[in-house]
Amino acid sequence: DPEREKDMLDRIVKHNEGPFDDHTVRYLFKQIFKASLDLQIEEQKKTLLVSRKKQAENTVVDLKGTLVGNGTPVIVAGPCSVESEEQVFAVARSLKEQGVRLMRGGAFKPRTSPYDFQGLGEEGLKILRRAADEYDLIVVSEIVNPGDMEMAEQYVDVIQIGARNMQNFELLKAAGSVRTPVLLKRGLSATMEEFLFAAEYIVSRGNTQVMLCERGIRTYEKWTRNTLDISAVPILKNESHLPVFVDITHSTGRRDILLPCAKAALAAGADGIMLEVHPNPAVALSDAKQQIDIPSFETFMKDLRASNLMGNQERVLERK
Amino acid sequence: DPEREKDMLDRIVKHNEGPFDDHTVRYLFKQIFKASLDLQIEEQKKTLLVSRKKQAENTVVDLKGTLVGNGTPVIVAGPCSVESEEQVFAVARSLKEQGVRLMRGGAFKPRTSPYDFQGLGEEGLKILRRAADEYDLIVVSEIVNPGDMEMAEQYVDVIQIGARNMQNFELLKAAGSVRTPVLLKRGLSATMEEFLFAAEYIVSRGNTQVMLCERGIRTYEKWTRNTLDISAVPILKNESHLPVFVDITHSTGRRDILLPCAKAALAAGADGIMLEVHPNPAVALSDAKQQIDIPSFETFMKDLRASNLMGNQERVLERK
Amino acid sequence: DPEREKDMLDRIVKHNEGPFDDHTVRYLFKQIFKASLDLQIEEQKKTLLVSRKKQAENTVVDLKGTLVGNGTPVIVAGPCSVESEEQVFAVARSLKEQGVRLMRGGAFKPRTSPYDFQGLGEEGLKILRRAADEYDLIVVSEIVNPGDMEMAEQYVDVIQIGARNMQNFELLKAAGSVRTPVLLKRGLSATMEEFLFAAEYIVSRGNTQVMLCERGIRTYEKWTRNTLDISAVPILKNESHLPVFVDITHSTGRRDILLPCAKAALAAGADGIMLEVHPNPAVALSDAKQQIDIPSFETFMKDLRASNLMGNQERVLERK
Amino acid sequence: DPEREKDMLDRIVKHNEGPFDDHTVRYLFKQIFKASLDLQIEEQKKTLLVSRKKQAENTVVDLKGTLVGNGTPVIVAGPCSVESEEQVFAVARSLKEQGVRLMRGGAFKPRTSPYDFQGLGEEGLKILRRAADEYDLIVVSEIVNPGDMEMAEQYVDVIQIGARNMQNFELLKAAGSVRTPVLLKRGLSATMEEFLFAAEYIVSRGNTQVMLCERGIRTYEKWTRNTLDISAVPILKNESHLPVFVDITHSTGRRDILLPCAKAALAAGADGIMLEVHPNPAVALSDAKQQIDIPSFETFMKDLRASNLMGNQERVLERK
Repeated sequence: DPEREKDMLDRIVKHNEGPFDDHTVRYLFKQIFKASLDLQIEEQKKTLLVSRKKQAENTVVDLKGTLVGNGTPVIVAGPCSVESEEQVFAVARSLKEQGVRLMRGGAFKPRTSPYDFQGLGEEGLKILRRAADEYDLIVVSEIVNPGDMEMAEQYVDVIQIGARNMQNFELLKAAGSVRTPVLLKRGLSATMEEFLFAAEYIVSRGNTQVMLCERGIRTYEKWTRNTLDISAVPILKNESHLPVFVDITHSTGRRDILLPCAKAALAAGADGIMLEVHPNPAVALSDAKQQIDIPSFETFMKDLRASNLMGNQERVLERK
Repeated sequence: DPEREKDMLDRIVKHNEGPFDDHTVRYLFKQIFKASLDLQIEEQKKTLLVSRKKQAENTVVDLKGTLVGNGTPVIVAGPCSVESEEQVFAVARSLKEQGVRLMRGGAFKPRTSPYDFQGLGEEGLKILRRAADEYDLIVVSEIVNPGDMEMAEQYVDVIQIGARNMQNFELLKAAGSVRTPVLLKRGLSATMEEFLFAAEYIVSRGNTQVMLCERGIRTYEKWTRNTLDISAVPILKNESHLPVFVDITHSTGRRDILLPCAKAALAAGADGIMLEVHPNPAVALSDAKQQIDIPSFETFMKDLRASNLMGNQERVLERK
Repeated sequence: DPEREKDMLDRIVKHNEGPFDDHTVRYLFKQIFKASLDLQIEEQKKTLLVSRKKQAENTVVDLKGTLVGNGTPVIVAGPCSVESEEQVFAVARSLKEQGVRLMRGGAFKPRTSPYDFQGLGEEGLKILRRAADEYDLIVVSEIVNPGDMEMAEQYVDVIQIGARNMQNFELLKAAGSVRTPVLLKRGLSATMEEFLFAAEYIVSRGNTQVMLCERGIRTYEKWTRNTLDISAVPILKNESHLPVFVDITHSTGRRDILLPCAKAALAAGADGIMLEVHPNPAVALSDAKQQIDIPSFETFMKDLRASNLMGNQERVLERK
Repeated sequence: DPEREKDMLDRIVKHNEGPFDDHTVRYLFKQIFKASLDLQIEEQKKTLLVSRKKQAENTVVDLKGTLVGNGTPVIVAGPCSVESEEQVFAVARSLKEQGVRLMRGGAFKPRTSPYDFQGLGEEGLKILRRAADEYDLIVVSEIVNPGDMEMAEQYVDVIQIGARNMQNFELLKAAGSVRTPVLLKRGLSATMEEFLFAAEYIVSRGNTQVMLCERGIRTYEKWTRNTLDISAVPILKNESHLPVFVDITHSTGRRDILLPCAKAALAAGADGIMLEVHPNPAVALSDAKQQIDIPSFETFMKDLRASNLMGNQERVLERK
C-alpha cells in the first residue's frame, strides 16, 4: 500500500535525529519496505507448484511404462508434420527398431503464413494413433486451440504446447484442465522465469504431468535458426522438479550438428531429446531443411548410444 | 521438386563444354533454380492482401466517424486493466475533455503468473461499454480466447490482439471471421515479416479492418522494458497499406520519456499513439509503474498538440 | 566486507526475539546491508562526470563557431570511406551548398574482414583537411589506434570512436588525453549504462568535449541492419549533459527510411543527425548499399528543413 | 560493375522474346549476376586461412609440451584478476595438484567503469611468470594495447584477446605480428562469421597459433549473465581447423551450473574449458560473484574427470 508506506516514511523522517540525513533515512527505509515485499515475492516463488523448493524429488511422468524424469533419458522423434499414413508408418517402424518409444508428429501446424500447409488436423491425429497402436508407441502432438483438448485426448498420449503458444494462457488453462501429460516448449524469446510461470498455469489447474522443452531462443546469430540455450537445462532442473527436454532440431535448425548438440544436452542433464525425422525430408511439407531421413536417424542413434551418455545418466544426475 | 531439379542439373552438366567448369555450372544453375523459386515467393508476397503492392492506397478504418489511417493521427488511451466503474468513468471523462475518442482498457489480461490479476472478463467489457456510451467513445479491448469473439462484438468497437498472442493463429483466424476492426500488436520478438503474415491471417479470412501496433521488441537493454523499434513505422507503412500505431507505454515502460517517444512516433509517420492512463497508477492492479495519472495525461496532450506533429500529419505523409 | 557482515548478522540473529523468525531477520538485514551498498553506488553514479546530476546544464561543444548541444540540431554528412580527392571534394561542395558544416569520412576503417578495404590512413585525413579548408567545414573522422591521437589532431576537428571500439578502453583513455572533441558511438550491443561509462573514461581523463551517438543496436530483426533505439535519445539526454546524435545510416542500413528516421530522431530531442553521402554509392569501397548520392542528399535536406524539426528545436527541448 | 551490368540487362531485355516477360527476365539475370558474385565470395571464403576448407587437419598448438586441439581436452583456470603474489601462488599450487597446466589471470583488466580496478599491469604479468616458473605452468593473460605485445611476450605463453576487443582490429593486427600463441574470445554479440574473420586478422599476419573461445553471447535472458552458445562449438570445429575453448565462467556467470556446462562443452567437442578460480572469491577485486574457491575447484575437477568426458575425447571427435 503506497499511501500507508508514504505515511510511515514521513513519520520516520520526522523523528530522524541522525546519524544519517533525511534523504538517506528515506532511501534506507524504502529499501527495507522493498525488501519486505521482495521477501513476500520470494516466498510466493518458493510456493510455485513447479518449483524445486515446493517439491524436492523429480516429477517422473509415466507414459504407458516409459518413465520420463527418472534419470534415464528418452528420445522423441518423428516428422515435423503428419502428411500421410505411409510417411508416419515408415517413421514409426524405424522408431520401433531403434527402441525409441515416443513419436512426435504435427497435425495442427502453427505456420507463419496463412498460405502454408496448416496440417491434416484430426485426421492427422488418427494416423498417428493407428501407427502408435501398431508399433506400441507413445504419441506426442501439438494442440493449438483450447477447444480441442477433449478431442485430442482420444488420440494423443502427450499434448504438446508449441513455442508460439507458450504464453497463450487460454490454451495453458485448457491443458491444465485435462489429465493427459503435457510437453511445454519454451517461447521464442521467453525468459526461464516466464517459462516456469507458463508451466505453473498448467500445474495450478491440476495437471501435474508437465514436461519442459528448451528449443532455442531468438538471437542475432545467423548461422543457426535459433540459439540453443544449454544453460537452461541445469537451471531448470535446479529450479523445478519437472523433466527437461531439448529439441535439437528447432534449436539450431541444422542437421550437421545434431549429434554434438544431443550429446551436450544429455551431458548437461537433460531428461530427453526431441528431433525431427522424415522418410524424405526434401519433399516435406514443412521444415524440409532441418529434418533428417531414416538412415541418418539410425546412424544418429548408433552414435548417441556409443557416447555413453544415454546409459550413464543416473551417474550424471547424482553427481550434480 | 528436388528430384526433377537434380535430373536437369545432371543433364546440363553432361552437356557443359565450357567456359565454366562443371562445379561452376552446377552452382550457377542451382542459383537460377533458386532465383525462379524466389521469384515465385516474391510474387506471392506481392499478392499478400496486406501488402502495399496489392493495394496502393491506405486502408482507412472508420470507427464511428473517427478515421484511422487518413493522415490525421489519433490517440488511444486508458487504463491497463479495467478495475471498476469509477476508474473507467474517471478516465473516460478525461479523454472526452481532451478530445480523445479511442479508449483502451483490458478486461481479459494475459499475465505472466497465473496468480496475478486476470481481469474482470465480460463484466469489464460491460463497464467499458457503459462509459463509452456515456461519453461517445470507441472501446478498444483485448480478446484472448477464439471462442469469445462473438461475445466481444456486443461490447467492443475494436478487438485488440495482444503481443503474446500475435502468433496464436487460432485467435487470428477467429478475429478474421468477425467484422469488428482489429488492432494487432507486434509480438515480443516478432520480425516485421512475421507481423505482416499475422495480419494476413486476419485479412485473408475477410476482416480487412486491421490496424498494426508496434509496441517494442525484446532486447538486452535494461533501462527500458522493451526497445521501441521506430524504424518499423516507416517500413510497415511502406510495405503495407494498413494503419500503424505505436504503443508508447509498453514499448519503453518508462513514464519519463512518453512525450519524446510520442513525438518520434508521429514524426516517423505513425497513424496513432497508444498510451496507458489510470486515475491512481500507484494502486493499479497491473503495470502500476508505467501508467500515468490524469493530470499528467492532460499535460502530455497539451505538449503533444503544441508540437505541431498532430496537425501536420498530411504533409508528413505526402512528402514520404 | 563480507566477513564483518556475517559477524553482524550472526549477532543480530542471536538477539532476535520476534516477531520475525531468524531466516526473515537475516534476509531483511542482508537487504539493508545491500541497500546501504546500493546507496553508495547511487552516490557514485551521481558523481559520474558525464551525468546530468553532476552538471545540470547542457555541454555545448563549440566546433569553430558551430555549436552542438545548444538546442539547434546539426547535420554530419559525408562518405563512409575517404576514397579520393575528387570524391571528398564533390561531397564537401554539396555540404557547403546545403549549409551543412560537419563533414564525416573514414580514413581508418574497422572492417570485419582483413581483406576488405582498410582505408587510406593518414593520406585520407589529409584529403579531408584540404576539402574542409577549401569549404570551411569541420572534419569528423574515426581513429582506431591509441598511438594515432596526436597525429590525428593535426587534421581532424572531431575524433570519432566507432561502435566496435566503444569498449576499447585504451583508445578511450588516449582520446581522453587529447583536447580535440570526441564523437563516441554506442557499441553494437552496449547498454546505455555501458555507453555512459565509456564516455566517462574520456571525460575523466580531462577531455570534456564528448558527443554521444546512437547508431542502432543488434537485434534479431532482419529487415534492418540494426535496430535504431530511439528511446536512447531522451534517456541519454536526461541522464547526461552531453550532446546526443543519431546515425540514421548505420542504425537501419536502409536508404528508403532515412527521412522518417531523421525526423523521429529530431522529434525525440537529438542534437544532431549523422548520415552517409557518396557521389556514386554503387561503386563505394564500403557500405555501398546504404549511402545516398548527392541529389538524394539535397532532396533529403530540403524535406528535413520543411518538416519544421530543424528550426524549432529550442521549443522541443524547453518543453521536455 | 553496376553500369556494365545495367547495360547487359538492357540488351538482354531488348532481345527477350518470351516465354518470360521483361520483368521476369530482368529479375532472373540479376539473380544470375548475383550468383556469380556470390560464387566469387564463396571461393574467397574457402580460402580464408582459418577455414577447414583451406586446411583439413586440426591446428594443434604446442604449449611447452601441452597440446591443444589434438583430441584431449585441456583446462585453463585461474583468478579473474591478478591481485597479489600470495593469491596467484595459491591458485598455481592447486592447479599443479590437479594436473592443470594452463593458468589464466588478468593483469590488464578491461572494466566497464574507469573507477573500477584496472589491474596490476606489467607487475601482474611478472607475478604470473614467477608462479608459472615455480610450478611449471603455462601463462594465459589478456593484452589490451597494441603497443604492449613485445613486452607481453617476455612473460606470457598465450596472449588472450578479450571479448570487448574482438573487433579491435589494431590489437588483432599486433597479435598477428608476434609469434606467441593467441587465445581469442568471441565478442559479446559477435556472429560466428565475424569471430572467424577476427581470427583471420591474426592468422593472415603470420601468427597461425590461434585458439578460439566461446564465452557466451548477450541476449534478453536475465537468469544468466550471458547465454552460452553451445552450438558454436561444433560449428566452429566444422568451419575452422583452430582449437575451440568454452569459458564456462563468463558464459553464464553462475557458479552453480559450472559442472553441467563444462560437461556439455566437452560433449559438444570443445578442445578445452576455461574457468575462474580464486582463493577467496568474496573479496576478489573483480567478478567476485562468479569465481569459485579452491576446494570447489578440486571438487569440480574430480567430478569432471569422473564424467568420462575428459579421457574419451578422441572418440568423441573421430565419430563426428
